[in-house]
Amino acid sequence: MYTNPQLWELTLDQWPAAVWELLESAANGFDEPFRTPAVASTGPDGPDIRTVILREVHSPQRRALFYTDARSPKVEQMASHNAVTWMFYDPARRLQVRARGTASLHGDDLLAKRCWEDCSEANRRNYGGLQVPGSALEELSKEVSMGAPDGRENFLVVATAFSRLDVLLLGDQSNRRAGLAWDGSIWTAGWLSP
Amino acid sequence: MYTNPQLWELTLDQWPAAVWELLESAANGFDEPFRTPAVASTGPDGPDIRTVILREVHSPQRRALFYTDARSPKVEQMASHNAVTWMFYDPARRLQVRARGTASLHGDDLLAKRCWEDCSEANRRNYGGLQVPGSALEELSKEVSMGAPDGRENFLVVATAFSRLDVLLLGDQSNRRAGLAWDGSIWTAGWLSP
Repeated sequence: MYTNPQLWELTLDQWPAAVWELLESAANGFDEPFRTPAVASTGPDGPDIRTVILREVHSPQRRALFYTDARSPKVEQMASHNAVTWMFYDPARRLQVRARGTASLHGDDLLAKRCWEDCSEANRRNYGGLQVPGSALEELSKEVSMGAPDGRENFLVVATAFSRLDVLLLGDQSNRRAGLAWDGSIWTAGWLSP
Repeated sequence: MYTNPQLWELTLDQWPAAVWELLESAANGFDEPFRTPAVASTGPDGPDIRTVILREVHSPQRRALFYTDARSPKVEQMASHNAVTWMFYDPARRLQVRARGTASLHGDDLLAKRCWEDCSEANRRNYGGLQVPGSALEELSKEVSMGAPDGRENFLVVATAFSRLDVLLLGDQSNRRAGLAWDGSIWTAGWLSP
């Protein structure tokens, strides 16, 4: 699906659907590089960034989800500043997609409940650690990093509704860039200087 | 060099040198995923992020370089807020390294001059476009994106001196995380909760 030459054939009108198709495919477990995007948020000392796992994509709501530990510093960052930017980069397709939007935190609602039910037991352990993520450890201990089987209270779904997409497609002779913006009812698109 | 099992063997004392060795190897053209890190900066509407090419690493100065077009929006961002965070992610090694530091912009000094001289002609063309990167294009035109052969005046070297490194190593049973901080003369290191 969508090799680099195929992406070069896309018209502006075709780009929004193509981007969402790529994101949905990644969330469904295919297309590995797009499944592990970088997410940037505003931290106390400047921009912060981390790799996340793209868990779900809902293109009608222009929304993407990842899971995190509610005690992680990024949660406080996004609670204070909900503007975030995701970046997907696929070196084989030579494609970078940057997606800006606002993050919403879901710990105790229907979305969080359903996502928790979808989690494997192995994944649930990620949220059961006794130690706050990022806090100093006295010593390395397997129990600490393994986590308890039920970390439901620390499980948080971060949903981002995207309103702007910036697509950069690399080629041998030149590059191509498009800016997509959600105007409230449709995606508009324009070519940009790469 | 440094497979995932080998990285699991590293002591805290060994981590700083290992990280710099990996970064230098990437800058020298090997280790592809670390050669294309994400760099986050503070934009006018929240955090911004993009993939860059790691051009050089100078471990004695704790410094990494990338090149950009001086007219790119990220340059204005970093001139206003010089706190930046780089993220290197290698899915094969299962290793993420986040590096925080301050960015300095070099357009017309000895560093910029030497880097420009090191650039291939193909690379130099990237800085010769008539259009400001990110600006709207009336129509797609090959000449616009190709660029003129001499873009010296738009060529900018961004150097970041890192003062904090956050290393996350993934494993099958658990994950491991270390925080490294430059104290002015040496790197100190401590284990963190993943």
